[in-house]
Amino acid sequence: MQKAVYTITPDDLALFTDLYELTMLQSYFDAGLTGEAVFSLYLRRLPEKRNYVLACGLSDVLDYLETVRFSDEAIAYIRSLGGFSERFLAWLGQFRFDGDVYAVPEGTPVFADEPILEVVAPIAEAQLVETFVMNQIHVQSMHASKAARVIHAAEGRAIIDFGGRRAHGLDAALKAARAFHIAGVTATSNVLAGYRYGLPVAGTMAHSYVEAFDSEREAFWTFARSHPDTILLVDTYDTLAGIDNVITLAEELGPEFRVRAVRIDSGDLADLAKEARTRLDAAGLGQIGIIGSGGLDEYEIAKLVADEAPFTGFGVGTAMGVSEDAPSLDLVYKLCAYGGVGRVKLSPDKPIYPGRKQVFRHELDGTAKSDVIARLDEELEGRPLLEPVMRHGARFPGVTKELNTIRDYARKEIERLPARLRSLSPANPPYEVEISGELADYTEIVRSRHR
Amino acid sequence: MQKAVYTITPDDLALFTDLYELTMLQSYFDAGLTGEAVFSLYLRRLPEKRNYVLACGLSDVLDYLETVRFSDEAIAYIRSLGGFSERFLAWLGQFRFDGDVYAVPEGTPVFADEPILEVVAPIAEAQLVETFVMNQIHVQSMHASKAARVIHAAEGRAIIDFGGRRAHGLDAALKAARAFHIAGVTATSNVLAGYRYGLPVAGTMAHSYVEAFDSEREAFWTFARSHPDTILLVDTYDTLAGIDNVITLAEELGPEFRVRAVRIDSGDLADLAKEARTRLDAAGLGQIGIIGSGGLDEYEIAKLVADEAPFTGFGVGTAMGVSEDAPSLDLVYKLCAYGGVGRVKLSPDKPIYPGRKQVFRHELDGTAKSDVIARLDEELEGRPLLEPVMRHGARFPGVTKELNTIRDYARKEIERLPARLRSLSPANPPYEVEISGELADYTEIVRSRHR
Repeated sequence: MQKAVYTITPDDLALFTDLYELTMLQSYFDAGLTGEAVFSLYLRRLPEKRNYVLACGLSDVLDYLETVRFSDEAIAYIRSLGGFSERFLAWLGQFRFDGDVYAVPEGTPVFADEPILEVVAPIAEAQLVETFVMNQIHVQSMHASKAARVIHAAEGRAIIDFGGRRAHGLDAALKAARAFHIAGVTATSNVLAGYRYGLPVAGTMAHSYVEAFDSEREAFWTFARSHPDTILLVDTYDTLAGIDNVITLAEELGPEFRVRAVRIDSGDLADLAKEARTRLDAAGLGQIGIIGSGGLDEYEIAKLVADEAPFTGFGVGTAMGVSEDAPSLDLVYKLCAYGGVGRVKLSPDKPIYPGRKQVFRHELDGTAKSDVIARLDEELEGRPLLEPVMRHGARFPGVTKELNTIRDYARKEIERLPARLRSLSPANPPYEVEISGELADYTEIVRSRHR
Repeated sequence: MQKAVYTITPDDLALFTDLYELTMLQSYFDAGLTGEAVFSLYLRRLPEKRNYVLACGLSDVLDYLETVRFSDEAIAYIRSLGGFSERFLAWLGQFRFDGDVYAVPEGTPVFADEPILEVVAPIAEAQLVETFVMNQIHVQSMHASKAARVIHAAEGRAIIDFGGRRAHGLDAALKAARAFHIAGVTATSNVLAGYRYGLPVAGTMAHSYVEAFDSEREAFWTFARSHPDTILLVDTYDTLAGIDNVITLAEELGPEFRVRAVRIDSGDLADLAKEARTRLDAAGLGQIGIIGSGGLDEYEIAKLVADEAPFTGFGVGTAMGVSEDAPSLDLVYKLCAYGGVGRVKLSPDKPIYPGRKQVFRHELDGTAKSDVIARLDEELEGRPLLEPVMRHGARFPGVTKELNTIRDYARKEIERLPARLRSLSPANPPYEVEISGELADYTEIVRSRHR
């Protein structure tokens, strides 16, 4: 049962579901529940340290919905668990997702209670896909939202994703790189992410390279021979001595010297960068950039920028790679209609809004002022955010997979937010999201049925 | 370049590396650096809220090391990045990992500075694998360490992993389920994890199932017909009314009633469980268990257990699935010898220990008292933790893949720790880890070479 090397194949994806989805499907099948369900995916609340969440991951969800199938091997495994009828398993073998999906485009800033997507499909289809849909929108939206803060803090300086080694597993490293690109990150160090998504990849040298030589000078000299346009890591032994070694290398190589930048990974980054800048400039190496790294997050970067530390870019690893201060989003996927009738759980904390919905974003002079969550058939002022993205299991051709298009869209959408939402501090006041009168009334009607 | 459905194939794994590993390899190749390197993987410090880390993920690392290869497609992609010579790319096409690995067994509690594994190989081989090795040991050790706390808090009650939907991507969900099993978790809700690793899978019903019916009673009745031995979710509308519906169902079904448990997912869990227990017992349903879920972590579980809330088990999702309070470990992979000579970066905060090492765990009456990190050739009191696991790229047959064996080992190793380390609070005093005199002296010698 265990494969020699860990991989995920398309056949595996149908099994990437919670067991209860399958037990519920068996029971829907037994009871003949084939009516149309509406499931809504939304955030119950924003993380404390996020003023908005950048919705991301739709493309992977649509790819999955178009292709999810149970292989014979998968069916055999489900059979082995017991409790499933042969008739149901035969039906499962023919399972296809044939539903419709409405979603906000990837790269849209969203707020609590706003549907990120709504699935409209026979209940079994909409139910089964819950686990995968949540997993992928969750991880990518979480990563994009964190990266947007880092980008903002860097005020135009390059940000390079160094997070793959501490991302949670292989998929997270790749999906993070995708989400980071959408949020505006310059490049990733992860080669597979570059390959899969066509992203710029970046990287230079590690301390281990420098240590493998008898001296740092020898290491720099050797590396620059292999990679003339490189970035040299200068803090293995003594950062400023490292800078002096770069200057010596420039003198030795003369016109052949093409090193693009140095990287400082430890110590007092602001002080070291300032002194490094002074020494490089004095040596006529004003063209050499300075990259900072080593445990950076948006707060540290904002501080370095405020201190006028002369960094031209930053490598950001763990803090962004695991979204350290908000490693999860309170994202849920809730049934809100079945058989054309609104349905909700009676939640003790806050209401779930029944039926299909639309979000209208009201803008003034190009700046978002407030959103209204409304019933689908309402026509309110503002720009509707949800659009059809899949019909009868087929992705709309207009839904782009082009990451640079999504990145451009995200940048524009973030620029349209009030400035206080881009701040690293909690927005005061937070962004205003209202529930339309009609939706509030309908919610009360549906809730009252079960009280 | 983009595949229709997201998958990870064995061919992809060689590209799961940071670009700088490849640029360094090109330069090692150019400069003829083929000497033997020693890289050590260890934690620079424990997370604030962990008294130990449970080492996990070795098996996936060994699988990878045995099989990592660059496909023609991968080589073509690397060529497209520029800066790599054809001679180097031809060499890369023949790349195999032919080194030796020494490691602590999966399921071993480890502390700051202790090598979790050491790779001894030609420098290019030991260098290239850094990203994958770190990623996999990191994610699994992080998850196992979190789960060990949850298990401890539950004092023998069943723990079910519900985390897949909010785990960071697909790989994390699967690797978490594996690590959770090693740490003692009872079952996972993730079907693919069950399939891949042969784990017990568990799951029942969601609120959406109950809502799809006109009444909760009808939902329970229908579900119990499909799945007689099930667990019914009772908090969709009103938890105690839900309990009463279960009791009614028992009366209606008579001897056919085989429901095993109820699940409460919201509200005041302790109060609701106590009242549910009273009502179930009064109805002669003492055999029915009560499962608690809904945002639980080890602290909440410990509180419920202390309150004598009559739960027989808990479903734990996000908090364990993303290791919410410690979503990263400060795990590093450092060169500590090249060409038989100890090497270190001069770190501003704490020393890196050069050369190959061993960890001796000193035990008294079956309880671990302290560890000593020593040079490899020292023979000290106590149990050596690192053992050979791979030679010349081939896994030692004795290194088990059997998860239940690893789980048993982990349980025994955790039991051997002083009780204060299993506490949810910071151990006071923390576990004692010393550096042997010889290692301290050698470290000073190596450091002095670069000062």
